[in-house]
Amino acid sequence: MIMEKGISSVEVLPSKSSQVTAVKVVVKEPETKQTQRGKRVGFVLVHAGAGYHSESKAKEYKHVCKRACQKAIEKLQAGALATDAVTAALIELEDSPFTNAGMGSNLNLLGEIECDASIMDGKSLNFGAVGALSGFSLAAFKRNKRKLELAEKVETDLIQLKKRRQSNEKENDSGTLDTVGAVVVDQEGNVAAAVSSGGLALKHPGRVGQAALYGCGCWAENTGARTPYSTAVSTSGCGEHLVRTILARECSCALQTEDAHQALLETMQNKFIGSPFLANEDGVLGGVIVLRSCRCSAEPELSQEKPTLLVEFLWSHTTESMCVGYMSAQDGKAKTHISRLPPGAVAGQSVAIEGGVCRLESPES
Amino acid sequence: MIMEKGISSVEVLPSKSSQVTAVKVVVKEPETKQTQRGKRVGFVLVHAGAGYHSESKAKEYKHVCKRACQKAIEKLQAGALATDAVTAALIELEDSPFTNAGMGSNLNLLGEIECDASIMDGKSLNFGAVGALSGFSLAAFKRNKRKLELAEKVETDLIQLKKRRQSNEKENDSGTLDTVGAVVVDQEGNVAAAVSSGGLALKHPGRVGQAALYGCGCWAENTGARTPYSTAVSTSGCGEHLVRTILARECSCALQTEDAHQALLETMQNKFIGSPFLANEDGVLGGVIVLRSCRCSAEPELSQEKPTLLVEFLWSHTTESMCVGYMSAQDGKAKTHISRLPPGAVAGQSVAIEGGVCRLESPES
Repeated sequence: MIMEKGISSVEVLPSKSSQVTAVKVVVKEPETKQTQRGKRVGFVLVHAGAGYHSESKAKEYKHVCKRACQKAIEKLQAGALATDAVTAALIELEDSPFTNAGMGSNLNLLGEIECDASIMDGKSLNFGAVGALSGFSLAAFKRNKRKLELAEKVETDLIQLKKRRQSNEKENDSGTLDTVGAVVVDQEGNVAAAVSSGGLALKHPGRVGQAALYGCGCWAENTGARTPYSTAVSTSGCGEHLVRTILARECSCALQTEDAHQALLETMQNKFIGSPFLANEDGVLGGVIVLRSCRCSAEPELSQEKPTLLVEFLWSHTTESMCVGYMSAQDGKAKTHISRLPPGAVAGQSVAIEGGVCRLESPES
Repeated sequence: MIMEKGISSVEVLPSKSSQVTAVKVVVKEPETKQTQRGKRVGFVLVHAGAGYHSESKAKEYKHVCKRACQKAIEKLQAGALATDAVTAALIELEDSPFTNAGMGSNLNLLGEIECDASIMDGKSLNFGAVGALSGFSLAAFKRNKRKLELAEKVETDLIQLKKRRQSNEKENDSGTLDTVGAVVVDQEGNVAAAVSSGGLALKHPGRVGQAALYGCGCWAENTGARTPYSTAVSTSGCGEHLVRTILARECSCALQTEDAHQALLETMQNKFIGSPFLANEDGVLGGVIVLRSCRCSAEPELSQEKPTLLVEFLWSHTTESMCVGYMSAQDGKAKTHISRLPPGAVAGQSVAIEGGVCRLESPES
C-alpha cells in the first residue's frame, strides 16, 4: 500500500524578516494505492533549474523532468541502487535541448573535461565530480567498482554535445536554466543526489562551479549513528551564492530535525537569504530539492509489521520559478510542476517552499 | 599590559574513543608585560605543516615560522589590517626552501596558476583563492580594492620558484610538509586566515587541492549577530581528509561554544578522526591552527575600563608532528614549537592539542 500526499495550494506566510515571503504548502490527505506484487519501490525527485521558466516553454521543461523521473524509476525497478538511478535521471536531464547543463562540456588544453557535475552516494558517502578540475576525481567511485555512467556518457558524447550546443545557441534564450539535478531513494532506503550545470558558456575558463564542489551542488547521506534521517539534496542557482553558503550540506544537516518543512524554510531564510557571507548581495538566488526518508513502524491499523519507508520531499527557491518532477516506483507516471513565487514577491528576497509525503512499502513477495 | 599564558607540559588524557589519545595543555600562570605607548597590538599564529618534522631539521622549520611571525607583526605595527598581515606571513612561509608550499606553482596550458592557496578576511568574509582553478577568483578581493600581495608575488616569482624547486628536489626528503598557513588578529579585532599548499608535485594536473577549496583550507569570521567570537582557522594534512570533513569551517563553528580547548578536541575526535565520511580510511591525517578572540571587560583589579582583546590560540594534529610559531605585537620575538604525538600514540588515530591565551590591550596613547 502506498499513501501519497500531493501538492496543493500555497499560502503566503508572514516571515521573521520583513523582506522574506514564505510560501507554505498545505498538504492534502493521502490517497491509497495497491502495491503490485514483486515490484520494487523507490522515489525520485528532479529539477530543471531554479531561475525563470517562461510559460511558453513550460510544457518542454515539464517534459524533460518527466522523462528523467521515468528513467530513474526504470532503473530502480530493474534493481539498481539509488546512485545508478540518480545518474540515469541526470543524463536524461542533461540530454534535453531545453536545459543548458552539459552543453558547456569542453576539453580544456590539458585534455580534461570542464563540465561541472557531481554525484554523491549516501551509503558509501562517496563523492564524485566530473572533470579533473575538482578536489575529487572519479577514482573514488572506480575504486569501489561502481560503474559511473555519467562519466562515460560525458566523455563519449562530448563532440556531439558541442555540436548540439552550437546549433541550440540561438534557441536558448534563457541563460539561467543551466543547472539540473536529481535525488533518489531506493528500496533499501539508500539515498543519492546528483547535479550538473552549464560549462564554459557561463564561467571563466577553468573555474570550478558549484556543481563540482563538495557540499555545494549536491549532498546525500544515509541514516547513521548521529543522523536519524537519510537525506539527499540537489541545488541550483547562482554559483557563488550556493558555494558561500555550502547550501546542499547545510540543508542536509538542518533536515535532521523533526519538522522537515520548517527546517528547510529556516535554512533558506537564515542560512541562505540571511547569510552573513552574502550580506553585500542585492538578492540571493537559488533553489533546492530535498528528500529525506526514515524507516518507520507500520500504520496503526495494520497489525502485521512491514518495513515501511516514509519519504518526505520538498523544493524551495528564491528565484522566480523552479521546475520539478517527481515519481514513485508505484506510480504510472511522473508529476511535474513549475513552482513560482507569488505575485508581488521579490526574487532574491523571498522564499517559496512546497512538497509532499510518500510512504513506500516493500512489495508482498 | 599584556598577559600571556604560554605552552608547557603535556599530559595524556583518556578519551571517549579508545583509539584516540588526547594530549592536554596545562597552561602556566601568565606573565605580565608593559605595553609600549603608541604601539599597535595584534597576534599571529603560523604553521609549517602537519606531518613529520625530523629533529635534524627542527631548527630550520622553527626559523621559517619565526620569520613569518615577525613579518606579520611588522605589518600589524605599521597599521595593516589582519588580511595584509596574514598574507605577509604566508609569503614568508612559502619562500622557505624547507617548505614545499608554492613550489608546485606552475602555469597550466591555459596560462593559469595551479598553485593552491587561499586567504579569507573575517571582516568582509571575502574568500580569495590563488589560481583560476577554483570556484573563487581574486576578483572578489580586487573588487574591494584590496591589494592582494600574494597574487602578485606568485605571478612575479613563478619562474624563480620553479627553478628553486628543481634545485631543492633532492634536499627535500619529506613530502608531507607541503602546507603552510597563518591566522592573525589585528588591533581592531579583525581576524584573517591563509593557507598554501604544494602544487603539481603531489597532485593530479588540474586538481584543486584543499587549500583553495571553500571551508577546507582556511576560514575566518569576525564576531557577528550569531557568532560571539571572532575565529580564524588554517589547516594542513591529507587533502581529501580535510575536504571531506570541511575541517576549517567545522572548527570555526565549534569554536563558538564556551570552552575553546574542549570544542577543538571534540571536533578533532568526532568530526575528523571519527567522521563517517572517512570511515574507510586507515588513519585520518591533519592538523589545524585556530585563533579566537573576543572583547572582554578589563581585569577586576583594573578600575578604569580599557578595550581588551582576549585571544585564545590552539593547535591540534593527528599527524606525527606539527610545527608552529606565534607572536604578539608586544613581544620582542616569536615563539616556535614542534608539537609531537606522545610516545606510543598512533598517527591518524590520536589527537594532540596544545595552546595558550594572550590578552591584548590597546596602547596608552
